[in-house]
Amino acid sequence: MGTTQLESVQEPKYWHLKTVLSEALDSDFAVGEVLPNERDLAARFGVARATLRQALEQLELEGRLQRRRGVGTTVAPPRVGVAVATAQHGWAGGDTDEAWQPVECTTTTAPAAVAVMLGTDPGELVHAVRRIRVAHGQAVAAELLYVPTPSVPELSAIEAQSGPVRARSVLRELHRLDLDGQDRSVELGSARADDAKELDRLPGAPVLVVTTRYLADAGTAAVSVATYRADTCRLTFGDSGALEISHDEQERKAS
Amino acid sequence: MGTTQLESVQEPKYWHLKTVLSEALDSDFAVGEVLPNERDLAARFGVARATLRQALEQLELEGRLQRRRGVGTTVAPPRVGVAVATAQHGWAGGDTDEAWQPVECTTTTAPAAVAVMLGTDPGELVHAVRRIRVAHGQAVAAELLYVPTPSVPELSAIEAQSGPVRARSVLRELHRLDLDGQDRSVELGSARADDAKELDRLPGAPVLVVTTRYLADAGTAAVSVATYRADTCRLTFGDSGALEISHDEQERKAS
Repeated sequence: MGTTQLESVQEPKYWHLKTVLSEALDSDFAVGEVLPNERDLAARFGVARATLRQALEQLELEGRLQRRRGVGTTVAPPRVGVAVATAQHGWAGGDTDEAWQPVECTTTTAPAAVAVMLGTDPGELVHAVRRIRVAHGQAVAAELLYVPTPSVPELSAIEAQSGPVRARSVLRELHRLDLDGQDRSVELGSARADDAKELDRLPGAPVLVVTTRYLADAGTAAVSVATYRADTCRLTFGDSGALEISHDEQERKAS
Repeated sequence: MGTTQLESVQEPKYWHLKTVLSEALDSDFAVGEVLPNERDLAARFGVARATLRQALEQLELEGRLQRRRGVGTTVAPPRVGVAVATAQHGWAGGDTDEAWQPVECTTTTAPAAVAVMLGTDPGELVHAVRRIRVAHGQAVAAELLYVPTPSVPELSAIEAQSGPVRARSVLRELHRLDLDGQDRSVELGSARADDAKELDRLPGAPVLVVTTRYLADAGTAAVSVATYRADTCRLTFGDSGALEISHDEQERKAS
């Protein structure tokens, strides 16, 4: 693409306003500061309120602004880098991983897509472990980990069939498996009501859905569907933890 | 989280409508089919148009619907799985990678965040290679690859300083480096005007921004900032290409 072509791109009004607002956020506002109301902002920048609202939505998508009911629109802190593919966070097992907090375990049928990945029959019951991931004191992700019963053959049938204790038992048993590898996909989604509640968001808020398939013994041992807050998180994938990208401040300044 | 808690979650009206609409898409509509207009849809489901519009926005976020000017709202095909971390797509070098099409190369200063990752001075000139990634006949990503001059010491100073030929020369030289590793981050963003044009989207459309740092000789050899269409793409990360998750159809049916 040549410069000429670039210049000929027609930028909508809200897009130009977004750029101007973004610079204003850098120079005139501090993190956490509440923005003036929409009417005053629209007047200040000489635009229609519909245009302003579109620009604010853009900035919210980019993680620059947070809009909360009862508080108003505030300047967001830089996004938090959250590692999703290191050894520490990659494998679902064990209760040594402090980042993920097991909160519940139920026996249920997996969604059809998950059943396909697990290789289970559509109506087959699996363990569903519910975990919440906390980073920097904030819930950043809510996960459902689907574990077919053959993956945890030693699981005691005596104890309670649900609750956090059961969740830890399933994870402990799962951890005994030797992991052959994992596949992962990331896509845009909207928060389901239960996930939204855990993440302190409204249902339908944009989220990053990370689906992970854990492979062991040439089969799929478990499938995790984790919903990350898209407003506050940047997912990081590194060859090692030490190499992880951590340039929030600089990135924010440059954007 | 127990069942009781789950049931006590208050679902907004648009969220319930979204679920109903989603089921209607599965049963009553085919991929590519144009939906009735908003007035008719609102009447059909007995909701206010504002509620309908929110539900449609949700379904667009989830990749179920596409809204295009002059066409209306159509049922979207399943998202395309796009591998971003395999050996084939991981390393920027070479012109053997048919998926990425080099279209331009300029000499420019890198954005501040990129300069930090590259370890270059803020005002230092670097090569910026522009590439478009095509999958299944569609442009799915637009990339800017920033290459500091020390990474391509053998680059000829004689030939043209820009254009696709130059882009290929930079990539060829870059490919001579032995790659030590790479770091990657994924976050939600909104499409810049130039990227939006390449991707056939409006500026500000939701995109997945993939930032990759290529490491060689204990330093950063290049930084790629790639913008993927969030509506049509699911990014996949696998231990090998063979293990890649590919369950679009099933996933669609289950959602």
